[in-house]
Amino acid sequence: MKNIKLEIMYDGRNYFGMQIQPNKLTIQGEIEKALKDLFKSEIKLNYAGRTDRGVSAYKMVANFFVDTKIEAEKIALALNPLLPDDIKVLSSESVGEDFNARFSAKYKTYMYKFYSSKITLPLFLSETQIKGELNFTKMKKAAKFLIGTHDFTSFANPDTQIEDKVRTIKQIKILRENIDGVWHYSVFITGNGFLYNMVRIIVGTLIQVGEGKIKPEEIKTILKLKDRTKAGKSMPPESLYLINVKY
Amino acid sequence: MKNIKLEIMYDGRNYFGMQIQPNKLTIQGEIEKALKDLFKSEIKLNYAGRTDRGVSAYKMVANFFVDTKIEAEKIALALNPLLPDDIKVLSSESVGEDFNARFSAKYKTYMYKFYSSKITLPLFLSETQIKGELNFTKMKKAAKFLIGTHDFTSFANPDTQIEDKVRTIKQIKILRENIDGVWHYSVFITGNGFLYNMVRIIVGTLIQVGEGKIKPEEIKTILKLKDRTKAGKSMPPESLYLINVKY
Repeated sequence: MKNIKLEIMYDGRNYFGMQIQPNKLTIQGEIEKALKDLFKSEIKLNYAGRTDRGVSAYKMVANFFVDTKIEAEKIALALNPLLPDDIKVLSSESVGEDFNARFSAKYKTYMYKFYSSKITLPLFLSETQIKGELNFTKMKKAAKFLIGTHDFTSFANPDTQIEDKVRTIKQIKILRENIDGVWHYSVFITGNGFLYNMVRIIVGTLIQVGEGKIKPEEIKTILKLKDRTKAGKSMPPESLYLINVKY
Repeated sequence: MKNIKLEIMYDGRNYFGMQIQPNKLTIQGEIEKALKDLFKSEIKLNYAGRTDRGVSAYKMVANFFVDTKIEAEKIALALNPLLPDDIKVLSSESVGEDFNARFSAKYKTYMYKFYSSKITLPLFLSETQIKGELNFTKMKKAAKFLIGTHDFTSFANPDTQIEDKVRTIKQIKILRENIDGVWHYSVFITGNGFLYNMVRIIVGTLIQVGEGKIKPEEIKTILKLKDRTKAGKSMPPESLYLINVKY
């Protein structure tokens, strides 16, 4: 048996998320179908993290066990013709038997993209539009209060069934670029794990700080209160990307 | 009468090009329809250049004459709700009566995007995929031979009805960026005018140089021969963008 590690890129906008669900189009579902086509047996895919409906990935990491004579590096090229155009395997390699894409992951980095303009920009529809102006300095200041190990109950969808809400955020980088007079923002968040909707709620809260609706220092209180209603709204999934997984 | 100058962004992938055509979805058609809705009269739009079917624009410049009490700067905001999401007016202003978006234009800049990878990248479907590896140095060298005033017959679709094939290319910049091991290229071409498919044929030729199929120095011969069959193929329109018009 070989343990095969995959790096996968997908445009998730037409999918019900990573995790397989009956009668729904999912990333895991499509990949397991391609694996079955290629290896003629049912293969279970492990992957670094569930991405929600509509979320995309520049680099999702996954692994599976298979008994095959196909060279590990060639599996990517063999799988791709069996996959839709919006899901492709970037690379495949053989790894040690104890590697598990989910449990071996140390950090994941997500990116969220938005721009601030009264006018909708047709060539940037994959970025979320914020109509008001944003105070960049305040957003960066607020982000610092989220770094570290905290109980993120205030920043999680209450529907989650996970009890332990403590997570560690290692880094939040907010970059912006001015294109023809419009500020385009990318927020990069690296952490050891994320609760349901956590990245989107963090970004929604940082935007409310930028809009002047929440003061940067209030982040400390919002964390302490462990109350979802105190943080900002969850941003739309279509501008969220899993960027990288570190092992 | 006011002469109103517009800057327009559009995602042209669902359109039959800029120029109005009966029973076809065009950018000009959609904008003139919005102008008619707003001003309750038939208004003819002038614009910097016809972009082909599928081509997009970060900044197309247009102008029209109207008798209105609406403040020039507010026309953009008034037009946008009357336009589809993939066409938006970025700005509007009042200009002198002799300004004509087409005839006053001195230079236009187009950008063409592609990447070089055996594997199709789902998050870069708006860039054309080149499967082979490209020699960047040779491409830049070839581009230099196109700068200046030349007869571009070899680089124009022969279906064009324009007699004078002499144009001046002011600048060709080829930039590339490595994202996760893949080279993404942007070719910027600035000229005083472009023949039918000229930008796409120039880029197709530069790619053939990068692939080693044409030597950089051969560009000189290709220009001299005035024979369309000697240059490279025309690249797909979906990765072409009008970037800027200079007056």
